[in-house]
Amino acid sequence: MSLIVQKYGGTSVGDPARILNVARRVIATQQAGHQVVVVVSAMSGVTDGLIKLAKAVCDTPPEREMDMLLATGEQTTIALTAMAIHSLGHHAVSLTGAQAGIVTDGVHTKAKIQNISPRKIHGFLDAGNIVVVAGFQGETHEGQTTTLGRGGSDLTAIAIAAAIKADLCQIFTDVEGVFTCDPRIVPTAHKIEEISYDEMLEMASSGSKVMQSRSVEFAKKFGVPFEVRSSFTNNPGTIVKEESMSMEQVVIRGVSIERNQAKVTITEVADTPGSASRIFKAIADAGIIVDMIVQNVSLAGTTDISFTLNKDELPKARKVLDPLVCEIGKSIVAQDGIAKLSVVGIGMRSHSGTAAKLFEALSAGNINIQMISTSEIKIAVIIDEAKAAEAANLVHEAFGL
Amino acid sequence: MSLIVQKYGGTSVGDPARILNVARRVIATQQAGHQVVVVVSAMSGVTDGLIKLAKAVCDTPPEREMDMLLATGEQTTIALTAMAIHSLGHHAVSLTGAQAGIVTDGVHTKAKIQNISPRKIHGFLDAGNIVVVAGFQGETHEGQTTTLGRGGSDLTAIAIAAAIKADLCQIFTDVEGVFTCDPRIVPTAHKIEEISYDEMLEMASSGSKVMQSRSVEFAKKFGVPFEVRSSFTNNPGTIVKEESMSMEQVVIRGVSIERNQAKVTITEVADTPGSASRIFKAIADAGIIVDMIVQNVSLAGTTDISFTLNKDELPKARKVLDPLVCEIGKSIVAQDGIAKLSVVGIGMRSHSGTAAKLFEALSAGNINIQMISTSEIKIAVIIDEAKAAEAANLVHEAFGL
Repeated sequence: MSLIVQKYGGTSVGDPARILNVARRVIATQQAGHQVVVVVSAMSGVTDGLIKLAKAVCDTPPEREMDMLLATGEQTTIALTAMAIHSLGHHAVSLTGAQAGIVTDGVHTKAKIQNISPRKIHGFLDAGNIVVVAGFQGETHEGQTTTLGRGGSDLTAIAIAAAIKADLCQIFTDVEGVFTCDPRIVPTAHKIEEISYDEMLEMASSGSKVMQSRSVEFAKKFGVPFEVRSSFTNNPGTIVKEESMSMEQVVIRGVSIERNQAKVTITEVADTPGSASRIFKAIADAGIIVDMIVQNVSLAGTTDISFTLNKDELPKARKVLDPLVCEIGKSIVAQDGIAKLSVVGIGMRSHSGTAAKLFEALSAGNINIQMISTSEIKIAVIIDEAKAAEAANLVHEAFGL
Repeated sequence: MSLIVQKYGGTSVGDPARILNVARRVIATQQAGHQVVVVVSAMSGVTDGLIKLAKAVCDTPPEREMDMLLATGEQTTIALTAMAIHSLGHHAVSLTGAQAGIVTDGVHTKAKIQNISPRKIHGFLDAGNIVVVAGFQGETHEGQTTTLGRGGSDLTAIAIAAAIKADLCQIFTDVEGVFTCDPRIVPTAHKIEEISYDEMLEMASSGSKVMQSRSVEFAKKFGVPFEVRSSFTNNPGTIVKEESMSMEQVVIRGVSIERNQAKVTITEVADTPGSASRIFKAIADAGIIVDMIVQNVSLAGTTDISFTLNKDELPKARKVLDPLVCEIGKSIVAQDGIAKLSVVGIGMRSHSGTAAKLFEALSAGNINIQMISTSEIKIAVIIDEAKAAEAANLVHEAFGL
């Protein structure tokens, strides 16, 4: 008998018929001889409805009360899911985050899990129940209701899997798993069977937003292997786990495309300490999220510093930097209509020539590389957005994915 | 500085604008120099919506899960109410029933309050907050979410008032208070300033459904005086409290009419032990609620037993009794189209002639009395439903209300 944690997102529990579907899947898992803990999100649309209500009574709702409000979304789903399991003739009990023993810090709307006391979960499992736990929420030591922020339900599932020492954690979602590239862009893209935490992290941060990085990082930290799979089919998904020897034989795991990017270059920045920090402090203070940052070696006492960001944030960035630029450098050159293409794979550590192969593939397609940035297991390039799909297909093929 | 508990029902918090109204009232109370605890119900319609969702996934939802589901209704309102108070520039914190320290037994969907630990409420009050507590809900010693059943939010307010030794408990509702009779029936009916618990109980069980009997009984048991008043006006309401000497000088406090009644008579029941119990056991087993039961003295070895019930339940009652009647008595005579008229007042204990005056008033209107039943502070008669309004006016006038 294994102990399995299954997590279903808002789309998978979006209406009563879908909740009954989830109930059938969960029961099938139990009948295959396993103990099952189910983590569910709020039904899709419910959280937005609650936020709308909050805005109707208060422009800036206190975060403590926002947590109290939003926590009802998942509480509704756990009760309905337990009822659905009951209506199909099986035993289930629902638990709020607090009742499931999930203790967080007191940072409302983006609390961090501090520890989980799984005594109650084990008790109900041992009594033959399917245990249905509310994702996205917890309680402080003082008994205040908290929520975990974006991706919180995935985090709940992985944290519970760690706490109860589950044999498997399955994240059910609306995609079949992690793909070598977005199949809408590259028709030959295929599902990846196994991927390491680090590769998954790089894929996540490169536009393949199957899961929030935060949950993957948590899983890596506590060594929780998990599977990303579809709640609408019975196909196996992608297993995310510690890297293994066999993984390293694959140089490139996947190709990611991120569209709607813009780049900003500040030219002739004095090559002195403090220049970069002035730029990025101003950007950070404005709440703008930057992605790639590139600075080349300085040859003539000055250098150009470039960064990329979502194109919607470009006007805000210009507004912040325009008054600064004369003190820091010469001018600002900004451009949107660009995309980021990344190749990710732990195998590239031990294989030379990955960059060369990537650049060669792009060159063969006459695609100009505007910026380059690398990490240990990723190479990212900025290209013309209009050529993004063509580039993805060329690179996907070049690496034999 | 007084300590005041205010309770607002589902209609009073039915939409964001009304929640903001409640917030204004509560703030005004605090600004008058008081500490305020607010108990709120689910927004009107929300509970019905949740029940509909439950029925969509399960024909007979487990009561434990029903409690988990319904508790979200009040939790939504407390968060929104606290936000509304915040948006008007004042401090408020919301607490679920469990967080407010309300401990109940484990009888899901109709749990009884066992005790309240008001430590948290006092803590937040002392820190200058308005404390907003979810009505209708609590938690068992084992941490299971429970709900208190019909009238549960009134009960929460009165129980908290008892636990924190509040100076006043105000039940805000959609009526101005308790009236001497339904003003839609008797235009001269007026609001009662003060009424005893017992009178209120008899009024409640006689069709003046301002509050559930259960909450009034609880208030009586713990000696919590409370005021029933409107959340839409600033008029004082009706104070419900221990009877006082002055109260006894009023013979009749009010007149109640209950329509849509039916009566059932089983004729020639053998005057032997067990006959009545066989009838009412069968009725109770079918879940039918009976109101008045009348049996006169037996003169010829047999007697007639009559009872009243809601007319909608009449077919069910006939179905239950038809197979039994030949063993118990001779025949069943059933009739709807009747109403119950009650006069209530603790003064009637010490005043003879109340019954005579009532019967005389009805006789003057040529209204026939079909059944009579009395308690210590109430006389109820069954009359033709078509004459109910006329009867109420005659009686109201006869007793000088």
